[in-house]
Parts: sequence; structure tokens; C-alpha cells
Amino acid sequence: MLNIRIEKTKDPKVLPGKDNPLKFGTIFTDHMFIMNYETGKGWYDPRVIPYQPLNLEPSAMVFHYGQEMFEGLKAYKTDDGRTLLFRPDKNIERANRTNRRICIPEIPEEDFLQAIKTVVKVDEAWIPTKEGTSLYIRPFIIATDPYLGVRPSDRYLFIIILSPVGAYYPEGLNPVKIWIEDEYVRAVKGGIGEAKTGANYVASMKSQVKAHDEGYSQVLWLDGVHRKYIEEVGAMNIFFKINGTVLTPELNGSILPGVTRDSVLALCREWGLPTEERKISIDEIKAAHENGTLEEVWGTGTAAVISPVGQLRWENHIMQVQDGGIGPISQKLYDTITGIQLGRLEDIHNWTVEV
Amino acid sequence: MLNIRIEKTKDPKVLPGKDNPLKFGTIFTDHMFIMNYETGKGWYDPRVIPYQPLNLEPSAMVFHYGQEMFEGLKAYKTDDGRTLLFRPDKNIERANRTNRRICIPEIPEEDFLQAIKTVVKVDEAWIPTKEGTSLYIRPFIIATDPYLGVRPSDRYLFIIILSPVGAYYPEGLNPVKIWIEDEYVRAVKGGIGEAKTGANYVASMKSQVKAHDEGYSQVLWLDGVHRKYIEEVGAMNIFFKINGTVLTPELNGSILPGVTRDSVLALCREWGLPTEERKISIDEIKAAHENGTLEEVWGTGTAAVISPVGQLRWENHIMQVQDGGIGPISQKLYDTITGIQLGRLEDIHNWTVEV
Repeated sequence: MLNIRIEKTKDPKVLPGKDNPLKFGTIFTDHMFIMNYETGKGWYDPRVIPYQPLNLEPSAMVFHYGQEMFEGLKAYKTDDGRTLLFRPDKNIERANRTNRRICIPEIPEEDFLQAIKTVVKVDEAWIPTKEGTSLYIRPFIIATDPYLGVRPSDRYLFIIILSPVGAYYPEGLNPVKIWIEDEYVRAVKGGIGEAKTGANYVASMKSQVKAHDEGYSQVLWLDGVHRKYIEEVGAMNIFFKINGTVLTPELNGSILPGVTRDSVLALCREWGLPTEERKISIDEIKAAHENGTLEEVWGTGTAAVISPVGQLRWENHIMQVQDGGIGPISQKLYDTITGIQLGRLEDIHNWTVEV
Repeated sequence: MLNIRIEKTKDPKVLPGKDNPLKFGTIFTDHMFIMNYETGKGWYDPRVIPYQPLNLEPSAMVFHYGQEMFEGLKAYKTDDGRTLLFRPDKNIERANRTNRRICIPEIPEEDFLQAIKTVVKVDEAWIPTKEGTSLYIRPFIIATDPYLGVRPSDRYLFIIILSPVGAYYPEGLNPVKIWIEDEYVRAVKGGIGEAKTGANYVASMKSQVKAHDEGYSQVLWLDGVHRKYIEEVGAMNIFFKINGTVLTPELNGSILPGVTRDSVLALCREWGLPTEERKISIDEIKAAHENGTLEEVWGTGTAAVISPVGQLRWENHIMQVQDGGIGPISQKLYDTITGIQLGRLEDIHNWTVEV
């Protein structure tokens, strides 16, 4: 149990208005959680302080060797005024998996959850209630040793910042267009693709810019070895419904094990839909499109929840998914997951945690 | 031509003593160069200011999505008091290649060089002169947009810091032991392995810790697709001399194009040694070790210049390179390159640039 010191701001910001449509990740709340680490001393001085800039040496290792991890989850306000987190245990478990992979010291799970709850409680008034909005929670850890040799740092900061957000894609729940990348590679088995760390995101930017310029919202990555098996979208995992079966790539070491991915698999199984986690080649998708059995495609992620995919482009093949609209399973998944997140549907899985 | 404003420190630090053995990258000089970028405005406000912490929003993109690049080069003091840089044009060219790969705006080459020269000049008194020491120059760029969506930043800082350094490895020019990694992968073709960015270094840490625990200084990476072709050491490129021929892996997109690597190839060719840049499998190295033709192994990098390798370990095979000592070509390369860097040997390639 952490002994968290709380220092409230003397200069609170103006809350965004109730009808503010809110973009993603541009506004931050009044406070942040912060805790230090030093080898030999462990994690220490947990505190909630006014949201403020970080003061770091230019030689801090995070600026040079990318030793940084992050997580993303959301808090929701229910109609009866409770604050709910969605499956924070999964994010915390994954955070420590990332930590282990990139040599950052782990944070005890109960301390991590306590830190999230404490800072969310302090800034509870910031949780937006308009349809499609929520309070995005961004825990992250950065290496701060002032040292230019390459090795794991001996000092870290663990920080949690909060941002009231609207839809991740300007499209909202409307279908996005996805570019299947055939030149660049995001990650490979043996690498750090399954860790939630900056490296995987910076690796995606060039391709993303190219896709954007061509009018596509996101990039779908193929595997780095054979360049033919579907991996993930970078900001989302991907699902296909082909001939009645729900397919998603298996967790192979280079794919992020998404919390929404896991929830979607659980719901589909509950609904009696056949599901398969396995290797899926781009040729299989192309064939399904050609013979008309590609029934639905959607992405899953904390930021977008469910993002229907209306079109895929691979090399010169443009594949429209059915009529390009929102498929029935995508819609049902979105309604069910957001319904549970908002406390409007019964939470039979115990996915929500009250703050 | 930049109009660089210079603000000198009012509180200079004490210089390390002449006989200070100096470690790598722990002491920083009195000043730093800094310049801002904003989309629409370009690079602006170049200045040399007292060495000081950076003040960044916790949401600054560099902390989350790893959009950061760095370079490393050195300044040397000659016996007659001149200050020399070694092939800065190569670092600057590579910096802009990294920038293009990870969507950071380029810096005009002449401005980059002017920035380096200006800050080195201001802190010239910090260049150490003891054998094996130099002033390490670390230019780097970080993304500073306060935004949690994934896309290239619209704001950056370009910074140059300086550190008087001794040998990178505690071993100095003494042979190091290298662990050949067979589980983890550093980078893959199509990825960002040839860019000098934090992502490649964080990816290496877990393996490096494992190797260290087994008594090895560094990790030698195999390719991510076949897991059998030699790539690089992370902090160095690698060379083998087998049966009279000097071999190094070809630049295949996942290997850093090292400046010292390039210099070593040029010198070996000049000396009439047959050289080959090509795919080299671990089996070929093992066979050469077994039949006695593995004559020398060395690493090349700015930090260590030449680092003789005395032993390689791959799975359970421990391969000692000849008697485990410094090979004659390694020694000659070290003497020649440092001789040119220090202005003691004629610089027929025009590699040095006077500040």
C-alpha cells in the first residue's frame, strides 16, 4: 500500500464544457501522479501534484536510448455518478510485461492500481459524460539516468497523466480505410513488438504518413519474416469475420496483446460465434474478399474501442468490405463494451472496477 | 548560415584534471547548443546556452512514441593545439537519413556543422588530451508536441551536448568477449535498424543484461529473418579476418552504417587487404574457427574506435580468436585512425575538419 502524498493545485484550469466534442489527447487535467525509482532504493515518494512540466537532464537516457513504457486505459462516469475503470488489471499486468522486456523495474500491481485510482479520484470532475467521451489514463515510465552509455537506467519516473477525450479517429464509429503495408515492417518475433514502448510507434510513423497521404487512416502490418501474415494496426488489433467465423492473428511475440482484443474474443465466444486465433495470410483475406465471404473487418483498441474497417488496400488491390458500412457484429461489440464501460449493461465478467 | 546567439555560463564548473582517467558519458561541459522547430516556422532560435535541464510537458511525444534521433562523434586536441573533428560530414548525412526514416525534419548540413563547431569552440578547454581520451559530441533531436495521438510531432528540439570521455569499454583496447544472441532480435529489414534512434537500443537491453551476467561485454546480433546471418554489435559494427580476407556484413537495411566501419574498409583496401561486404553466416564463422582460419575479429564504432574481440560465444560454442590477444590489423587500424584523429599522421583522405 503506497503512502501517496496529495498536493492540490492552487490554480485549477477551466473544465471543458459539457458539450465540448473533445479531440483525443490534447487537454490534460489539473493533476498528475508521479513516483521515483532508484536502484537500491526501489520506487519511492509517490505523490499527486499539480500537472506540470518535467525537468530532466539533456543526458537523461530516455532521450537517447528509448527506454520508456506506456499504457492506456479509460475511466467512465456512469449515469448514477460512479466512476468505473475498464479491466485495469489487464493493463497493469501488461505494463509489467513491458517492463520486464525492456529492463524497467516492475511496479507492484496493487500499488499501480492504487496510483491510478488516487489520481482519477482527485480529478474526477474532469471525466466527461457526453456520448463517446471518457477520461483517458496514460501511465508511463521513463529512464532518467544522466548517462550516455547503453545499459538499463538506474533511475526512473513513473507518471500518470489524464486527458478527457472524444473519439480517437475523426471518423468516430464510422468505418475507416486501412492501408496494408508491403514495404516497411513494424516488429519481428524476438524483438519488442509485444511491448508497449515508443520503439514500435516511431517505427510506424513513416508508413502512417504515406498511408495518410493516400487517404487511409491507419496501416495494417504484415509479419517481418514472410511478409504475408497479418499482424496488427499499430494503434489497434485487427479482426476479420469470414464465412461466419471470427478470426484474429494469434499472439506470436510481435503483436500487442490488446485488452479490447481479449474482451472481444470473450464476447464473441459468449455469443456462440466460432473464433480462431491463428496465422492469417493476406492471400486468405484477398480470396475471402473475392469470393464474397469477407463479412466484416474491425479494429480493437482502448482509444477507439471498436473501429469498423470499410476498406482495405494491399498493393493495387482495393478491397471494400461488403457495402463499406458498419457491420452488425462491430456495432454489437461497440454497444456491448461501451455499455459495460458506462455501467448501463450488467457486468457479468467483472471487467469494471469502481474508483 | 545560422545566426547563433551565445550565452555564456556565469558559473563554470571545475574542469576534470589532466590525469583524470575519465569514464564514458558521465561528465558534461559548461554549455549546450539548442534550436527549436515548429511546423510552418522551420528550425529557429539557434543558441549556445549554459548546460541545463530541459523543461518538457509530461505529454511530450518523445516520452511516449520514441520519436528521437541521435548521433555521436568526437573532437580531438592535436599536439600543436588545434581542435579536430573526425568525418563530421558522415554523421550529419546519417543524421538526416535517420530523420527521414522517422519523420523528423532535416537540418541543413552546413547549419548542423556550424552548430557543432560553435559549441565545441565555446567549450574547447574541456577537450581532454590524455592518451585515449577525447570530447564526445552528442547531437540529438526529440519530439516535444504535447499530444497523445500517434503521428509525427509538429515541434522538436535539436540539442548538442559534450562530454569529455575515456575508453567506452573498461577493457580499453584490450580484447572484449562477445555473446552471439540466439533468442532476441534487434532489428529486421523494413524496420528502423539502420536509423540511429533509441528504439534499436532499448530493444538490445535485455539481451545485453543477460550477456553481462555471463561475463560478456556486448551482444552480437543475428538477422531477424533467418537467424543466422551476422548483423552488428549494437554499439559497434563487426569485422572478421578469415584466411587473409577482411569481412564485414553488407549494409542491408537493418545495420547501422558506421563511420568507423567506412573508415576501416577504406584503410584495409588501401593496405591491399582483400575486403568483402556481404552476408556472413554464423556457420561460416564457426567453421573458420574450427579450421584455424579465423585470424582476427574486431568491432568498430565512434565510442570505442577499434575494439578487438578475444572470444565469441554462440549457443554452447566458445570460440577463442587465436591467442585471445590484440591482432595486428586491429592494432594497426587503431593506431592509424587515432593517429589521424589526433593530427599525428598525415590525413590523406581529408577526414579531419578543423574547428
